[in-house]
Amino acid sequence: MQQIIYNPIGIIHSPFTQREGTPIQPSSAQNVRGHIDIYDEYAEGLCDLDGFSHIYLLFHLHLSESYNLKVRPFLDNQLRGVFATRAPRRPNPIGLSVVRLLSITNNRLEIENVDMIDGTPLLDIKPYVTEMNAVTQPRIGWLSQYSDQINTRKADDRFK
Amino acid sequence: MQQIIYNPIGIIHSPFTQREGTPIQPSSAQNVRGHIDIYDEYAEGLCDLDGFSHIYLLFHLHLSESYNLKVRPFLDNQLRGVFATRAPRRPNPIGLSVVRLLSITNNRLEIENVDMIDGTPLLDIKPYVTEMNAVTQPRIGWLSQYSDQINTRKADDRFK
Repeated sequence: MQQIIYNPIGIIHSPFTQREGTPIQPSSAQNVRGHIDIYDEYAEGLCDLDGFSHIYLLFHLHLSESYNLKVRPFLDNQLRGVFATRAPRRPNPIGLSVVRLLSITNNRLEIENVDMIDGTPLLDIKPYVTEMNAVTQPRIGWLSQYSDQINTRKADDRFK
Repeated sequence: MQQIIYNPIGIIHSPFTQREGTPIQPSSAQNVRGHIDIYDEYAEGLCDLDGFSHIYLLFHLHLSESYNLKVRPFLDNQLRGVFATRAPRRPNPIGLSVVRLLSITNNRLEIENVDMIDGTPLLDIKPYVTEMNAVTQPRIGWLSQYSDQINTRKADDRFK
């Protein structure tokens, strides 16, 4: 198995300096603002991005130093397979969030609905396009019993 | 800048053996089936995943050996910033797709709406949940003039 090496393209800044109390998804981080500083060498790649109201961020969950294949997710007390959850301690700790893009000034992106911890390394940005991404009425397995809590629950210390 | 090292958790198999003709998004790969073989050491993490009808796949675009910060995306002939596109040659070539999960048998996931090239290394699986992901009526910048073509266009050789 070949190792894959990536280099951060920038750093995400947010009001959250520790795991506890950090929103578990952007949908529970409405109105929370942050910003991203893109490294100079990648700034040219931001051209045209300001036309999009929402973007995907792919980022390295840098505080996740190991993983478990069964976890108790934030919304549940049952052990679940890690790939059936959004738990941050994963074999490859890549985070995925949709955030609102407010503005771009030089290398800085102002964003809203931020659920990352301050200092998170950014790996990639992709435009969010409904035609490509939206699925109507997906089945959501164990999460269906908690669907009313997805937007309100905060992280605790269980993935320390 | 710290390098980030990931290890594939499995391999994606599809009918597509070359770039040309491969769908550019899962939405243009309706009914195309493939499968994923998860490596034994990660199989326990698949528990509970079968309750979800759709899953996010994060994968390494292994044929992308370098990148340009300005690209001509499949849907356009203008040069666009790479982060405003889904072009595969990116600074960190991570692919992101939502696919339909048909079944799981042991380490094998049968999937539909496959837009990856055969042999693509898989990095992560996350459940797709509308509450977390869907944005209503996003602005989609340069893509808005091509929105009727997103589901029909195929890849050509421009990112060789």
